Amino acid sequence: MKTKFEVRQGSYYDSIVLMQLQRRLSELEGVADAAVVMATEANKEMLRASGFDVDQFVAYADDLVIMVKGDGAKAAIGRVDELLQKRSSGGGQGQYRPKSLATAAKSAANAQWVLISVPGRYAAQVAHDALDLGKHVFLYSDNVALEDEVALKQKARAKGLLVMGPDCGTAIIDGVGLGFANRVRRGNVGIVAASGTGLQAVTVKIDQLGGGISQAFGTGGRDLNAAVAGITALQALDYLNNDPDTERIVLISKPPAPSVATQLLQSAYACEKPVIVYFLGYAVSATAIGNVTFARSLTEAALLATATELEKSAIDVPHTYEPYMRGLFSGGTLAYELLLALRPFVTPLYTNIGVEGVPKLQNSLVSQANTVIDLGEDEFTQGRLHPMMDNALRIRRLREEATDDAAGLIVLDVVLGEGAHADPTSELAPVIEEVKRNRPNLQIIAIVIGTEADPQGMEEQIGRLQAAGCLVYTDLHNAINAITALIVSPPTAYKTVSPFNAGLSIINVGLETFYDSALEQGAEAIHVEWRPPAGGNAQMMGLLAKLKRSGT
Amino acid sequence: MKTKFEVRQGSYYDSIVLMQLQRRLSELEGVADAAVVMATEANKEMLRASGFDVDQFVAYADDLVIMVKGDGAKAAIGRVDELLQKRSSGGGQGQYRPKSLATAAKSAANAQWVLISVPGRYAAQVAHDALDLGKHVFLYSDNVALEDEVALKQKARAKGLLVMGPDCGTAIIDGVGLGFANRVRRGNVGIVAASGTGLQAVTVKIDQLGGGISQAFGTGGRDLNAAVAGITALQALDYLNNDPDTERIVLISKPPAPSVATQLLQSAYACEKPVIVYFLGYAVSATAIGNVTFARSLTEAALLATATELEKSAIDVPHTYEPYMRGLFSGGTLAYELLLALRPFVTPLYTNIGVEGVPKLQNSLVSQANTVIDLGEDEFTQGRLHPMMDNALRIRRLREEATDDAAGLIVLDVVLGEGAHADPTSELAPVIEEVKRNRPNLQIIAIVIGTEADPQGMEEQIGRLQAAGCLVYTDLHNAINAITALIVSPPTAYKTVSPFNAGLSIINVGLETFYDSALEQGAEAIHVEWRPPAGGNAQMMGLLAKLKRSGT
Repeated sequence: MKTKFEVRQGSYYDSIVLMQLQRRLSELEGVADAAVVMATEANKEMLRASGFDVDQFVAYADDLVIMVKGDGAKAAIGRVDELLQKRSSGGGQGQYRPKSLATAAKSAANAQWVLISVPGRYAAQVAHDALDLGKHVFLYSDNVALEDEVALKQKARAKGLLVMGPDCGTAIIDGVGLGFANRVRRGNVGIVAASGTGLQAVTVKIDQLGGGISQAFGTGGRDLNAAVAGITALQALDYLNNDPDTERIVLISKPPAPSVATQLLQSAYACEKPVIVYFLGYAVSATAIGNVTFARSLTEAALLATATELEKSAIDVPHTYEPYMRGLFSGGTLAYELLLALRPFVTPLYTNIGVEGVPKLQNSLVSQANTVIDLGEDEFTQGRLHPMMDNALRIRRLREEATDDAAGLIVLDVVLGEGAHADPTSELAPVIEEVKRNRPNLQIIAIVIGTEADPQGMEEQIGRLQAAGCLVYTDLHNAINAITALIVSPPTAYKTVSPFNAGLSIINVGLETFYDSALEQGAEAIHVEWRPPAGGNAQMMGLLAKLKRSGT
Repeated sequence: MKTKFEVRQGSYYDSIVLMQLQRRLSELEGVADAAVVMATEANKEMLRASGFDVDQFVAYADDLVIMVKGDGAKAAIGRVDELLQKRSSGGGQGQYRPKSLATAAKSAANAQWVLISVPGRYAAQVAHDALDLGKHVFLYSDNVALEDEVALKQKARAKGLLVMGPDCGTAIIDGVGLGFANRVRRGNVGIVAASGTGLQAVTVKIDQLGGGISQAFGTGGRDLNAAVAGITALQALDYLNNDPDTERIVLISKPPAPSVATQLLQSAYACEKPVIVYFLGYAVSATAIGNVTFARSLTEAALLATATELEKSAIDVPHTYEPYMRGLFSGGTLAYELLLALRPFVTPLYTNIGVEGVPKLQNSLVSQANTVIDLGEDEFTQGRLHPMMDNALRIRRLREEATDDAAGLIVLDVVLGEGAHADPTSELAPVIEEVKRNRPNLQIIAIVIGTEADPQGMEEQIGRLQAAGCLVYTDLHNAINAITALIVSPPTAYKTVSPFNAGLSIINVGLETFYDSALEQGAEAIHVEWRPPAGGNAQMMGLLAKLKRSGT
């Protein structure tokens, strides 16, 4: 098949623009496949895996690569500039657009927040500028250096300002979702999360349970490591403790550095409000210490935050002992919790993310046995949109997994809300249908994280997935229970111990107290006046044991 | 002060007899202190620490050392043989005592169980003999080789027999407590525990909550490691699943080997009954998977086993930010759970047992900062009775800790029941009183694990501790909450983020979707028509940044 390509050196494009370009190229006459990505090593490898010949040109991570397959490839490449001009846009079209942050700050003097999603190498400077202007920062950009993060957060703290991020995917401030966020009721629960989909899943569940959110702060995934020392999390906790609209606080994170965990928990313990803590993968040994309650799952965190009882849901899937499961996730925390939950039940289990006790895949592009992949990991998102916005990679992988007969169950998450793809199932459902047509017995579970108020229309999204043949869950806890019901295998049988006869009868050899105690409790007992063989002489004892063995 | 000693080479004595001898020597006229121990290195070091000159003789681990201080020392040593004859004994005095297990088995043909508590080096052979006679084994002895344990358990499994232990401290079979066990109601909860005091604490709590025990199996602490592969735990789980008297099952252990955890959980998952799992220090990410519910503490395991709600108890101790805490435990699992619970709240924290993230003491005999010591660890019990039976070591340590002004809180457990000291507070309370006389502000918390039916009389034990000035708790969860209330320090204050003004206003730099989304949600927003500085040229950008910095 004909392939045409174009490399634009050192180009900077908004990654949404790139996705739109890729989609428009794919829809052109005579185009079989199209790819528009920054030429990172990871992206090149994925292009190669999809059958694009990337060795016919030289391109670096900063370069934009456009590749098109099909008879119309040449014509398509010729239309790139035209397609790049055609930008879709929302309600802000035609409004005044300042060229710099400083100008913007003058014209919007009451703006408290600056949202930054420029490429990582530019982001720290923009964030410094925003702090210097006295603004809080929501820093969506990733690939920001750790030392920049520390410097930004220290500066912010000194000024009484917040820096959420870098790599902060989500927040809800004064009822407005920033980044990826679901439309949820306002209410009395405040959230601090170093975990994007963790925050989304908990806010959604709280909304499902009839509760609401006062403020929800993302901190960025590195906030709780030792270098950053939880600056943002501690500030946010303090904010919520002082906030009259917040009555309960939820704190979610992957395992923090021990020193940071201590600081956070001491601060949580000092709060005057109940604090629900869920550190994924962190072993605690208490239900509650003072006002701090420990949750075991995202769902439980939401239940505790709304003081709701867990209703035991009937998981109506039979134990079918499917062959291997393949989880293709866009939400990192969802993948992480699933892995932790499956870890002690399912073996062998692989992943591309760091989870203690779960080995990493040799190659993230190739599943092994049971696999849970986080497609939102850096290796997949460099120079490419997050899988919550761009389904292309997941669709490719879904088709691949389905051709592997060892895969009996595929699990997908579909995260709705602000920032996410406007209609994800319009792309996913047809592929699911196609895959199920070829393999009717392949089970597909979809976990939909969203609310009725979300712009995608939750009911419609679920309906389309169900029509395509998915089992759909709107709660990770229930989904995990369905997954285990499908794949956990029964243990090997072995000789059962016969029921004890009623009434205990004991022979005691050793401490006399045990004999006395058995008698006092009404058991039959006999005490052996035991003495060490051969008077305790080890050599003699060895001889006796040998003699005995040879004699029997 | 005069010291006299006697070494009896290669002697074998029942360790209860040794304790009684030590007590009787101490009570003689003119005796200031007495010690009767096997001459292990650890014991010699402890003798040295107590001011006994152990370098005046040569003695090895197999030798009995008797040391007496005081004017009456010589006379006391002269009476050792006489005192050794004077053995106290229970109800079985005068009954027929066969000299061997084989003879005993003939005279008690219906005996299903053999209790073995002879020294470790003899124990495996006795256990093999018991299995060959078709008996289940309760193996209290420790210091049994791992390969012996594997061989014994494999033999037992093939015969449909159980081997609880080695180092199995406790079990309740057909209503009779074996080893250390509390007198609890019979009922519908079956227990499998690789944790002695874990089993005791949970059975006691279930009894407190009005529930009861069908069967409670100890497995020995090594059962769930990879070599033994959970043979006993799996057999016991299977037994309880088939047992018509058992309606709920509780499974307790320190973290199992991952492969064993998987086997156990798959088996638990296959049970037709609810199984409550509490693996101390093992991070799970689910409240429940199918019929398997995960508990976060011993108390919660008991609550779940009896389907009781946790009542929020008022811990009526003020936050006084005591200086360091010193925990002196006889129950290993109690110490372990306390450490896991304190780990993220209290720093620095030390122990003598292996708990991930908690450093070990340089010397187990000397506390540092906050310390939790398990005095039931091998290093303290070689050739010496377990601290649940013998308070001597704990009393010494209690006095030592009290002389350290940095110690503001001392925590003790007092485990009642079969096998335990007949009246522990008769020895502990006077020392607590003495210590409190010297330091009235020293806080002492006692955790009493027992039932009203226990032979020691729980009410009387608690009364004596309270009269001596202890805060007494009968539940580890409440005790942990009291301890944290006393010692967790408040976090450092820092500049608080001011409340956001009502109504969100945003400046957006980067992805346009975030701008659109903010507008759609009704926020004020302004979008910056951002372009990389210097057209994305990194060198130029660096120059611009410098220029900018020098200009401000």
